[in-house]
Amino acid sequence: MLSKIIRKIAIRRTYHENIRTSFLYFAARKLHNSQTLQQTAQNESSTIHASSIQRGNYSQLTSDHIHFFESILDKQRVLTDPSDVEPYNVDWLKLAQGQSKIVLKPKTTEEVSAILKYCNDETLAVCPQGGNTGVVGGSVPVFDEIVISTSLMNQILSFDELSGVVMCQAGCILETLENYLSDHGFQMPLDLGAKGSCQIGGNVSTNAGGIRLLRYGSLQGNVLGVEAVKANGEVIDCLSSLKKDNTGYHLKHLFIGSEGTLGIVTKVALQCPPISKAINVAFLGLKSFEEVLKTSINARKKLGEILSSCEMMDHATLDAVTSNLKLQNPIGEYPFYMLLETSGSNREHDQDKLNFFLQSSLVSGEIEDGVMASEPSKIKAIWEIRERAPEAFKADGWYIVYDISVPLKHFYEIVPIMSKCLAGTSVKRCTGMGHLGDGNLHLNVSGKEIDPNLPNIIEPILYEWTSLLKGSISAEHGIGIHKTKYLHYSKSNSSIQLMHNIKQLLDPKGILNPYKIFHN
Amino acid sequence: MLSKIIRKIAIRRTYHENIRTSFLYFAARKLHNSQTLQQTAQNESSTIHASSIQRGNYSQLTSDHIHFFESILDKQRVLTDPSDVEPYNVDWLKLAQGQSKIVLKPKTTEEVSAILKYCNDETLAVCPQGGNTGVVGGSVPVFDEIVISTSLMNQILSFDELSGVVMCQAGCILETLENYLSDHGFQMPLDLGAKGSCQIGGNVSTNAGGIRLLRYGSLQGNVLGVEAVKANGEVIDCLSSLKKDNTGYHLKHLFIGSEGTLGIVTKVALQCPPISKAINVAFLGLKSFEEVLKTSINARKKLGEILSSCEMMDHATLDAVTSNLKLQNPIGEYPFYMLLETSGSNREHDQDKLNFFLQSSLVSGEIEDGVMASEPSKIKAIWEIRERAPEAFKADGWYIVYDISVPLKHFYEIVPIMSKCLAGTSVKRCTGMGHLGDGNLHLNVSGKEIDPNLPNIIEPILYEWTSLLKGSISAEHGIGIHKTKYLHYSKSNSSIQLMHNIKQLLDPKGILNPYKIFHN
Repeated sequence: MLSKIIRKIAIRRTYHENIRTSFLYFAARKLHNSQTLQQTAQNESSTIHASSIQRGNYSQLTSDHIHFFESILDKQRVLTDPSDVEPYNVDWLKLAQGQSKIVLKPKTTEEVSAILKYCNDETLAVCPQGGNTGVVGGSVPVFDEIVISTSLMNQILSFDELSGVVMCQAGCILETLENYLSDHGFQMPLDLGAKGSCQIGGNVSTNAGGIRLLRYGSLQGNVLGVEAVKANGEVIDCLSSLKKDNTGYHLKHLFIGSEGTLGIVTKVALQCPPISKAINVAFLGLKSFEEVLKTSINARKKLGEILSSCEMMDHATLDAVTSNLKLQNPIGEYPFYMLLETSGSNREHDQDKLNFFLQSSLVSGEIEDGVMASEPSKIKAIWEIRERAPEAFKADGWYIVYDISVPLKHFYEIVPIMSKCLAGTSVKRCTGMGHLGDGNLHLNVSGKEIDPNLPNIIEPILYEWTSLLKGSISAEHGIGIHKTKYLHYSKSNSSIQLMHNIKQLLDPKGILNPYKIFHN
Repeated sequence: MLSKIIRKIAIRRTYHENIRTSFLYFAARKLHNSQTLQQTAQNESSTIHASSIQRGNYSQLTSDHIHFFESILDKQRVLTDPSDVEPYNVDWLKLAQGQSKIVLKPKTTEEVSAILKYCNDETLAVCPQGGNTGVVGGSVPVFDEIVISTSLMNQILSFDELSGVVMCQAGCILETLENYLSDHGFQMPLDLGAKGSCQIGGNVSTNAGGIRLLRYGSLQGNVLGVEAVKANGEVIDCLSSLKKDNTGYHLKHLFIGSEGTLGIVTKVALQCPPISKAINVAFLGLKSFEEVLKTSINARKKLGEILSSCEMMDHATLDAVTSNLKLQNPIGEYPFYMLLETSGSNREHDQDKLNFFLQSSLVSGEIEDGVMASEPSKIKAIWEIRERAPEAFKADGWYIVYDISVPLKHFYEIVPIMSKCLAGTSVKRCTGMGHLGDGNLHLNVSGKEIDPNLPNIIEPILYEWTSLLKGSISAEHGIGIHKTKYLHYSKSNSSIQLMHNIKQLLDPKGILNPYKIFHN
């Protein structure tokens, strides 16, 4: 089988000789070693990745510590009963498992500040946690870190209808904010499948992407201000609510996407766009990835400013959704599917544009079939196919999702290669879907019972491949605990050294979310 | 006159008693003191702001240093003739004047790295300079700093038509990039009046705003990657060309908007939007600022996703443009003018939307008069009224522009107050214009001969006012040298301390653009 894969790669990889040669060597070596690895791998740790990590030299929790926490929070907000603590120790995918003995639930910035000051003085490691919806094990403890949950920091502080700026505490759930803004004619600049559970502080701390990024840009552009608490308890107030503010260094970016390792985000100010009057969704069937690519380029040209999402999935992804969740495929069976969304201020204009685009794409043969929806219930039904895909994979038994960015022309190439690499293993599905408009592929791997060695087979090949294409080994999910050893594939040594220096500057004792992003 | 101003302020400032009381006290004190200040002010320095600054403990330039620079650059790229060096010592507004004796013009990152390593070893201060179009004195030396001009680093390195990502050296002129992209059906995500001279490295280093920010967002969202050289010559490669890349800290933001104090930006990767097929511009006359505000809100609602600029100017601004530059006002005389631009993918749809908006605004009486243009020559003529305003003020003799962000409802309030405060001084015009869509006002002050005491009258009042409204004392122009003493009006002490810590981390000897943002 290996020779077949190599031949297939060799045929496809003619555009860049160095990439091809290097990758082939690498893939062959990894596949050759995988059997041996599989035999010797032991589930030494309770997570699939953390086996080689040693606990840092942090203090152990004592009853004195607990008494202190109870003195600044009321007792109900200091959880120590193992059954209460357990849900905070395990991630959504059940791939990362911590051993924390305590969860603290502050309500205010001052409480977070007091907790951190104390933990820093006592050298107690902490793990900040929002909605615990991350998929890289970043939001659960690795050992016995104290969990600081932001879930009770859920106050919306202000909303300005003139500017569209909302200011809120970190623990507000994304969907709650969306519903609140909707009542005022506005919407959040980000949307993602986990919106019912994920918290805005976690979104900001992981620079979450999602399905609106194509239209409204990244959180780095939409977060106007952040309040965060440093490891020593000092509150850094960069909570500007201004669209423009060029007064000194843009410190908020230290906290956007640093996964809680430089500070705990306590408040956020976000620029929110007005809600669109007209939303249309099209679900398309296509015969090849080449047609998917052509269609995405045409959509950008012909739908221009109203294109708000451009998603793709392969047949194997749709099959998981229809088989496991019993959702209905609104069109026939095709190798690829696309979900396009338009949102604009004039329904008639938008439908004109979308109709023209769909008709010309059908006539040219770029798309095989498609449905279009304008009514909210039908739009929701179509979006569910895309948004509930992770739930569908999880229903197989276990599920790992990989999240890479590569140049658009190489977007899907790794999926068939990886599928072949995984033939003969316990993997049931290896599929591709993602945010085509952003060059962001999610590679989904699922099966009945997890084999802890699988990441050792998949990851070196996937990340080496991504690195050779100058892609990102984590487009939107972050590094967390699962990807620490691969950080160098996407970041230069000088960048990693500078990250360490900044970590040392802001958190010299390394108490904030240790073992994440890079090993301390 | 003072009592009249105070009465007027008192009538207007009922919405926030604390703001009013504090501001009145402050304004009265400043106005009372201004005569005394005026009498004692001496033009101790060659700049209007730098008189109190002491030269840092940097080495003096020697012939050995010059020989070294000539050994790594060819002699033509080491300027030491005073007449060659002089243009690099003075800013565009002729308000900041340095005394550098040498200008270095590297062509490559490696040359920048070698220069900085040497300067750091020798404790020689440097001043990075792009197109020298800044208005806060940030890009010219204060004393004898070595000027490192990026103007020969002008190579466009790559452009990907699939993703719209351009990668280039820092010295590329904005308009050159715009023209290059235009040939490929794309445009830059930023545009500003200085586009013919300003360089993208300077734009990035100052997080430049401009007239497209409303539509395409800030540079913080559009810059995908940066390569920068630290003070010690180390190259930090964050030159990702990916739309999404969540692998560790987002280090590029250390260099976006830090005004060359943390590193010299050498390369940039930018996300560029496709060029719009249809552009329309409307120039409107309005009878009051209240109508301006209503019109801007209506424009956002009715023009939605196609609104690409929403600018305003008062009558006094237009008067400067028509008197000094002989540009024609296409409509009658009104207290306020607005310039709206739409850009979209369908001319017919866009004109429908714009016509509907203009008609309903005329009928409701929110706008008094207006013209609309769709032909490039007419669009250019209307845009010139806005874009050439700085040139018009400069033609008065001297010109200072202040650049603040305040909540939209307070956008114009300071202009009439400041006009009255400045009555009886040498000021000829005190006018307001700005990016209404971003809450960003430019307060323009001009006259025949500069009075170096004027900033001492204007700035404390303006910045105190801005600070009380939780605004920004520099929305898009940066801090440079002119605003260092006012940084605390927009930034908390803890933030300023953290900025100092980061400066110390990245540039421990403080050689990079000293005296800027904050005094070393």
